[in-house]
Amino acid sequence: MSTAPRVGRREQKRFDLERRVRDTAWDLVSERGYSEVTVEDIATGAGVSVATFYRHFAGKDMLLTRRWLSAERLVDILPSIDRDHGLPGAARSLFETYAGAVDAYDVDLLTRLTVIHRDVGLQVAMTKGRNEDVATLAGIYADIVDQPPRTLAIQLAAALTATARITTMGRWAELGGLVSLQVLLAETAETLAPALASCETATFTSRALVDR
Amino acid sequence: MSTAPRVGRREQKRFDLERRVRDTAWDLVSERGYSEVTVEDIATGAGVSVATFYRHFAGKDMLLTRRWLSAERLVDILPSIDRDHGLPGAARSLFETYAGAVDAYDVDLLTRLTVIHRDVGLQVAMTKGRNEDVATLAGIYADIVDQPPRTLAIQLAAALTATARITTMGRWAELGGLVSLQVLLAETAETLAPALASCETATFTSRALVDR
Repeated sequence: MSTAPRVGRREQKRFDLERRVRDTAWDLVSERGYSEVTVEDIATGAGVSVATFYRHFAGKDMLLTRRWLSAERLVDILPSIDRDHGLPGAARSLFETYAGAVDAYDVDLLTRLTVIHRDVGLQVAMTKGRNEDVATLAGIYADIVDQPPRTLAIQLAAALTATARITTMGRWAELGGLVSLQVLLAETAETLAPALASCETATFTSRALVDR
Repeated sequence: MSTAPRVGRREQKRFDLERRVRDTAWDLVSERGYSEVTVEDIATGAGVSVATFYRHFAGKDMLLTRRWLSAERLVDILPSIDRDHGLPGAARSLFETYAGAVDAYDVDLLTRLTVIHRDVGLQVAMTKGRNEDVATLAGIYADIVDQPPRTLAIQLAAALTATARITTMGRWAELGGLVSLQVLLAETAETLAPALASCETATFTSRALVDR
């Protein structure tokens, strides 16, 4: 007798519980603001104990902030990055993959983005993850153009790309999703392209100094 | 008899006290990290009461985080912005003025930047001010190119400029000030210029939609 269905059911139960907790958390945060919602509030609202909450989530931050380039996501994203057209091509393909993934599986993203866009407390909680995303992206870019990742040019290319994505998502949320995210991100990638191209060829004074 | 000298002395006393509190705060934060330092620690270290601290500063955040485009600074910065060469010219002149001001009056900036660059807690505390700076800059840019400030193009131009500045300052701090900040920021402004130029002329789908 196979045990697969049993495991499936248990995983489904875990998935349902985590979804319920997540949805409750977003409802509460959009009502009261990030800083006014405690783990206790979320657990009570979702009908679970605080101990159960912590068996599934490390805390309020981890539950609500989801990194763009987290290790789990990178597995899907890395193979689809265009490595043959420099940094502009890499950014374009990155945005395209991201917009595609978002369209496919996260229908609540718009609601969540609207909350994030309005809630400084939540943005503050995301600062650490954003720094990590920039560092990850700098590593990917450095690899593509075969440069060291800590130069100003590569740091700049990564930070500009990350900021461009966040700004575009914010504007998309503000417009209530009236415009396709895929279209907006493609336009942003085009706008960004010349700066990324110049990061690729720029010889910053600091670069010469570090290379010596 | 003129009262000017008396006022001068009182202001000098206030200035000295605020400087002492600020320096103490930076020393403590660079030793222990932002999140481990309380207002009580700072007051004790500077030899003032907590009540005196709060007569001079609204809190730990306000004391350590200084906005790039705060109202006080804008008074000096605004007249020196180049309005005749589009967004690239505006960013170039903005960075130049900023680097000049930094050279002239804040010798401790490098130490402070090194702390900020390493301390996520402090970066988190600065998130709100950074958002306000982007909004201020979007207003300035919108005015220069005569476009509404909330379009994606203008938001993008402002966010990219702000990120470029922060990334450059971080790299400057990391290099221990070995390279002139003025030179680095000028190079960053050049790298950024083509993206700002394309923000100026870009016709984003969202723009067409909002204008309707």
